[in-house]
Amino acid sequence: MNDIKNVNYIKTLAIDMINNAKSGHPGVALGAANIIYTLYSRHININYKDPNWFCRDRFVLSNGHASSLLYSILFYSGFLTIDDLKKFRRLNSNTPGHPEISTPGVDISTGPLGQGISSAVGMAISQKYYQSKINNKINFKVYVMCGDGDLMEGISYESMSIAGTLKLNNLIVLYDSNNISLDGNTNLSFNENMKLRMESINWNYIKVNDDIDEIDSAIITAKNSEKPTLIEIKTILGKESMLQNTNSVHGKPLTSEDIFNLKNKFNLDQIEFQYDENLINEFRNTILNRINIKYNETKDIIPLNESIDVFSLVNPYYENMKETMREVNAKIMNQIGKNLITFIGGAADTSTSTKTILLNEDIFNKDNYCGRNIYYGVREHAMGAISNGIASCGLIPFASTFLAFADYLKPSIRMSCLMNLHVIYIFTHDSICIGNDGPTHQPIEQLSMLREIPNLDVYRPCDANELLGTWDSVLKKKNPSAIILSKDYLPLINGSDKSLIKNGAYIIKKEIDKLDAIIIATGSEVEYAMLIADVLLHDKINIRVVSMPSINTFESMKDDYKNQILPFGIRKIVIEFGTSNVWYKYVTNKKYLININDFGKSGNKDEVLKYFSLDFESVKNYIKDILK
Amino acid sequence: MNDIKNVNYIKTLAIDMINNAKSGHPGVALGAANIIYTLYSRHININYKDPNWFCRDRFVLSNGHASSLLYSILFYSGFLTIDDLKKFRRLNSNTPGHPEISTPGVDISTGPLGQGISSAVGMAISQKYYQSKINNKINFKVYVMCGDGDLMEGISYESMSIAGTLKLNNLIVLYDSNNISLDGNTNLSFNENMKLRMESINWNYIKVNDDIDEIDSAIITAKNSEKPTLIEIKTILGKESMLQNTNSVHGKPLTSEDIFNLKNKFNLDQIEFQYDENLINEFRNTILNRINIKYNETKDIIPLNESIDVFSLVNPYYENMKETMREVNAKIMNQIGKNLITFIGGAADTSTSTKTILLNEDIFNKDNYCGRNIYYGVREHAMGAISNGIASCGLIPFASTFLAFADYLKPSIRMSCLMNLHVIYIFTHDSICIGNDGPTHQPIEQLSMLREIPNLDVYRPCDANELLGTWDSVLKKKNPSAIILSKDYLPLINGSDKSLIKNGAYIIKKEIDKLDAIIIATGSEVEYAMLIADVLLHDKINIRVVSMPSINTFESMKDDYKNQILPFGIRKIVIEFGTSNVWYKYVTNKKYLININDFGKSGNKDEVLKYFSLDFESVKNYIKDILK
Repeated sequence: MNDIKNVNYIKTLAIDMINNAKSGHPGVALGAANIIYTLYSRHININYKDPNWFCRDRFVLSNGHASSLLYSILFYSGFLTIDDLKKFRRLNSNTPGHPEISTPGVDISTGPLGQGISSAVGMAISQKYYQSKINNKINFKVYVMCGDGDLMEGISYESMSIAGTLKLNNLIVLYDSNNISLDGNTNLSFNENMKLRMESINWNYIKVNDDIDEIDSAIITAKNSEKPTLIEIKTILGKESMLQNTNSVHGKPLTSEDIFNLKNKFNLDQIEFQYDENLINEFRNTILNRINIKYNETKDIIPLNESIDVFSLVNPYYENMKETMREVNAKIMNQIGKNLITFIGGAADTSTSTKTILLNEDIFNKDNYCGRNIYYGVREHAMGAISNGIASCGLIPFASTFLAFADYLKPSIRMSCLMNLHVIYIFTHDSICIGNDGPTHQPIEQLSMLREIPNLDVYRPCDANELLGTWDSVLKKKNPSAIILSKDYLPLINGSDKSLIKNGAYIIKKEIDKLDAIIIATGSEVEYAMLIADVLLHDKINIRVVSMPSINTFESMKDDYKNQILPFGIRKIVIEFGTSNVWYKYVTNKKYLININDFGKSGNKDEVLKYFSLDFESVKNYIKDILK
Repeated sequence: MNDIKNVNYIKTLAIDMINNAKSGHPGVALGAANIIYTLYSRHININYKDPNWFCRDRFVLSNGHASSLLYSILFYSGFLTIDDLKKFRRLNSNTPGHPEISTPGVDISTGPLGQGISSAVGMAISQKYYQSKINNKINFKVYVMCGDGDLMEGISYESMSIAGTLKLNNLIVLYDSNNISLDGNTNLSFNENMKLRMESINWNYIKVNDDIDEIDSAIITAKNSEKPTLIEIKTILGKESMLQNTNSVHGKPLTSEDIFNLKNKFNLDQIEFQYDENLINEFRNTILNRINIKYNETKDIIPLNESIDVFSLVNPYYENMKETMREVNAKIMNQIGKNLITFIGGAADTSTSTKTILLNEDIFNKDNYCGRNIYYGVREHAMGAISNGIASCGLIPFASTFLAFADYLKPSIRMSCLMNLHVIYIFTHDSICIGNDGPTHQPIEQLSMLREIPNLDVYRPCDANELLGTWDSVLKKKNPSAIILSKDYLPLINGSDKSLIKNGAYIIKKEIDKLDAIIIATGSEVEYAMLIADVLLHDKINIRVVSMPSINTFESMKDDYKNQILPFGIRKIVIEFGTSNVWYKYVTNKKYLININDFGKSGNKDEVLKYFSLDFESVKNYIKDILK
């Protein structure tokens, strides 16, 4: 192949895309072209005729702002058309500003730095698990391109440390090292000895020049290594542009003069979007020839797409039990795990407390990739991004920690939702009721934060019945989901109905007579609502109690159903130990909202509840008062 | 001093506290006692008679769950009473579950792992800045104790990398290395070569045994170093407990048998909360003698507590300008910077885009600690926590990035709010209007996320006038604040009033005649509202426009004011390019909410707005329709 010509075409295609779109990042397109070209021309096993070929190698563009370069090589590789390139950064195109998983040839959405490289760790975990546990033919590499920015983000240290511990030798990171970031020279803020850093976390480190043959031979070494490998390639940002090696070339289109000169240097015509059909065909055929044997051997392997009916599986063992919600959840998860071999996950060093351990399964570690319990360490953020990578490969990951620390992985949860990946987050210790650990550990705004994320199904079940129903919905809908659990024992509520969780809310206690008011509650607060309804009945006040484990699910129901559950013109009161904003839609006055909008306090549970007037007596009396 | 006896008392006091509270973390109390004892007995310069002595050394307990041990040594050092210890983890005590900044002797609140060590970097930056720029007598060390968990969190890599680049040799980290975390042995998930890791980021690394003299001499070496130092001390979790060296001793009280044996081993009586008055006095006097000279030299130095009247400073240079909101903001910040020497900050590698650079000031770097522009690199999370540390030392830090990436520092923003620190967050690129970069870069739920955090003042000004008013409020109220800015040019709105931002919302356009409806808007959407009001007036519909730059500020106003701005019984419509939940409180029906509750799209601004029916024509027609 004529590597130099190909690379020049790839570069100018990217530059033309950026100019045509009037926005984009020329610096990396010019600087990193050799890297991506070497990978695609000589190594990566993909098939444009079958973009979803399950056993393909994965590629993650962690520095997602290099999208023009990726689309350029994807055009070269047969996944995109020249028209796709002309629509770069335009609405509903295959070539959005940052790579999106819906584009053929794009394995995961990227953009926020550090997410991609961390999701790649999840893909590498998936490959090892599939191969060891499910089908030994499932063997692929995970390639990543990343920039300085990715390696500055904390999440990348977290996930790469995990990859080192797990000896994920199927993971190869191509580091486009150009010493320039948006704000200028990286020596302002980034002065790490990358070799030592990589060795400290049990990775291979190889450093090469920006040369196709050097990159090629480094990749060959990496492919045969027993560890994950980072290949640092010293490149020049905006190479051969008039602005090369400055941050000015990072994020805006080149001038026409600059492009003119570039095309001259490359001996190309002064026309836009030019390419050579013969070179392209040769390039595509090279890939097809390379993958031929592997493709034919594995083309019929598809993801398992397992499903189960939770209700049919789980016996009502939870009756009369005195287990905490975490423990009940553990039992359900263990039954699910027995039936779904694709169910795999772990916690951020909190599994002994969140109880999300698959008891009869091994730990996933470097000596046993059949394990299904992943020990993420105290690395919530990486846990989220790794789970995204796992879900992108067709497994069903669960990930757990305390609700207060959902903050730490918010950026990754957003990515789950953006890609609509079936990641199941389990957050325990869900309110100020945890008491003594104090305000840093008491979630207040976290429930609301999660509910604000588009596309996330958030559930807060009130008892074991609702928890079962929650798992049923979570596994059937296959949406990104967050299950919010009390750390405590919650009694089985008379009227709780696992079959109605799919509606988001339902009448858990019907009024006896003429309806006077409705109390809406979630999770541990449903018990309050039930008891208060009983007390008020003595005063001839007829209360309906509505349990609303999932607001967003309820909101997606038809108006008929919503009006039936929450009829217009009836006073509604909400009890939930979280912030108020999300609840205003159901009440006419903020006095009907029994929430907490301040940080918690350290103290035992009873003291804390009393302090905030959220103990049972206070809430009961308050509701009595407002209903008088 | 009788070190052994003292350490035994400190240990048993901590153990008694945990038992008395029936909750806490005995493992680290027993394991790390030598570390904290060595620091307090031989090094740290503090004065219990003047806990807020400005030039004191700082101590950060990054592994905040070791609070019992901290309180025990603070009792020994004179900051707390034995009664305080008996109230451990009880409501409104000086000894909450995790350290809180309000306790005498506690320099910063900790608990969520990684926050403390990162805030300590901010303290170290502050000391260097104070000494170089303000008063060369301001010279103190910042000591940190941390555990494995802190060093697993991504934020600690970020902040420690910054500390290495900045050569913060006033920063000394005591790493309680016990190989056990909540979930078991750290080799499950944490297998780093700490020496290489530290060397890779330009730190000193010293490893010692759990021995007072060894720790002492390591601290002496660290104090005389030219770099920040991490001292790894190999300890035994729960040392001398029957459960030593297991994760069972991590997080729950010891049995009475275990405590009995411990006190026997230590040759102590079988009574609770015992101590020796003479040993305590000797300990306290040792500290007082050590600090004597330094204290007398520096006791009169207090934080500057600067303030300015923004309105008196800034000329109305912004009239007729065509600058973007980011650029206007830069001008205001630069004027503030000229007047407040305590105003210091930076961006997460986005300052060329967020424009938050103090133009006539230097870069804060290892060769120039007078600099006031901090280059955080692509490390949003560390930026937040470092800002907390800076604010805790009396400076006024600003920190900026794009609004979409507010997610990355949410956990640190929460800590700002929990401590009520005067940190000023500046988030630009505040809506889908950024267009081409696509959904990963288009904030949707972030405004709501910020508004849900208790104690955070969130402002979204509509023009330069409101931006001035915002800065006035931010600097006067001294609350943690987030200023949300459009990346674009926003015209000066006729009626915008800088003096009313302190009310959170105000009438920016009064109805001409009988009031028909109110449009509430914020930021760039105020212009829409104004234009729509004009159009509707032609149809004889009288609209009032309310600009609401700060919902939480408005909500804190008296009902009279609120009713005056938003009278009961008048239809209200909201226009804001963010999620809806927070706005339900002002409307009677969701049809009056013109928001966006889905992820954005890549495309140019006009395409994207049109796609979501949020272009001006669509919004205008929609409002016309609903007001018919």
